[in-house]
Amino acid sequence: MNDASQQPPSSPPRPAPRRAPSVVLVNTGDGKGKSTAGFGTLMRAVARGWRVCVIQFIKSGSWKVGEEDTGRKLGIDWWAIGDGFTWDSDDMDESEAVAREAWRSAKEKIASGEYRVVMLDEITYPINWGWIDEADVVEAIRERPEHVNLILTGRNAPPALIEVADTVTEMTNVRHAYDSGIKAIRGIDF
Amino acid sequence: MNDASQQPPSSPPRPAPRRAPSVVLVNTGDGKGKSTAGFGTLMRAVARGWRVCVIQFIKSGSWKVGEEDTGRKLGIDWWAIGDGFTWDSDDMDESEAVAREAWRSAKEKIASGEYRVVMLDEITYPINWGWIDEADVVEAIRERPEHVNLILTGRNAPPALIEVADTVTEMTNVRHAYDSGIKAIRGIDF
Repeated sequence: MNDASQQPPSSPPRPAPRRAPSVVLVNTGDGKGKSTAGFGTLMRAVARGWRVCVIQFIKSGSWKVGEEDTGRKLGIDWWAIGDGFTWDSDDMDESEAVAREAWRSAKEKIASGEYRVVMLDEITYPINWGWIDEADVVEAIRERPEHVNLILTGRNAPPALIEVADTVTEMTNVRHAYDSGIKAIRGIDF
Repeated sequence: MNDASQQPPSSPPRPAPRRAPSVVLVNTGDGKGKSTAGFGTLMRAVARGWRVCVIQFIKSGSWKVGEEDTGRKLGIDWWAIGDGFTWDSDDMDESEAVAREAWRSAKEKIASGEYRVVMLDEITYPINWGWIDEADVVEAIRERPEHVNLILTGRNAPPALIEVADTVTEMTNVRHAYDSGIKAIRGIDF
């Protein structure tokens, strides 16, 4: 009766492989490649004929212009600051307003189900700065149409995002050209 | 005479920023995103109008077909197994022959100076397996035309590659969908 084989197993069985309708990917860490790997994933989605969009949460200046050009050429919808958005800089910090507006737009795009992949580029920063409500982001992720894949990028992904993600990758800086005094190269670094 | 200000500084001065004609990037680690970040970087290079090529060192089957399709659409030269290469499977292990042939081709492409970026995808494996001579790879990197940028990917990048690289990023698996039993999704994972 006290046979060990009657004891419940000490660890749960490995779940059987299942086909998920979509996944949530998070690329975080302080190294290069968080956004870049996201864009690389979009190359696959585009090859599959999927409708894809990118939403940039941080005003990037000349950064990511290359990705944006190539992305648009591939038919990717690209929401970046300047796309018809204005703000009143007297009332609100410009970057915060951009991030809030980006999130409003992102939530709509996710819920619409029109895109098979929505990339929320550098969304961790406005979440960590308290500009966007973390719980609201998690809810939008959980409540999304089931065929909508999400890619979220940025340093210091908050625990609630890690929790809701299917795959989390941390990019770590082992060595960086900047440390040896090499300037960023247009075409490689941006 | 023994004034401390006369002593040499204990650490070398930080080098002044300089414009390097090209850089060597290494994406390593056991996480996702090594190749994918490389492909993302190519999106920038293409936007700049650069000639770019990818050389795949591992026969990938259905993997990377999406990247290859999109890459070719963007005008990237893509060398993958099947591109006019045949081997005698009686004499040599097929994968080893592919890797050696890929390296022969890669060396030519790097030295030709025709490409501003050459991506050596998953080259660390055949190096670590002893199929390609590490010293030969390092020499080709050091002796390359100065405008040729290189992207090398794969797990366990050997120390000699890390040493010759300008930027090294380690991708670490924090959580992976496979661990929860979710199957790879075409359009996202390949």
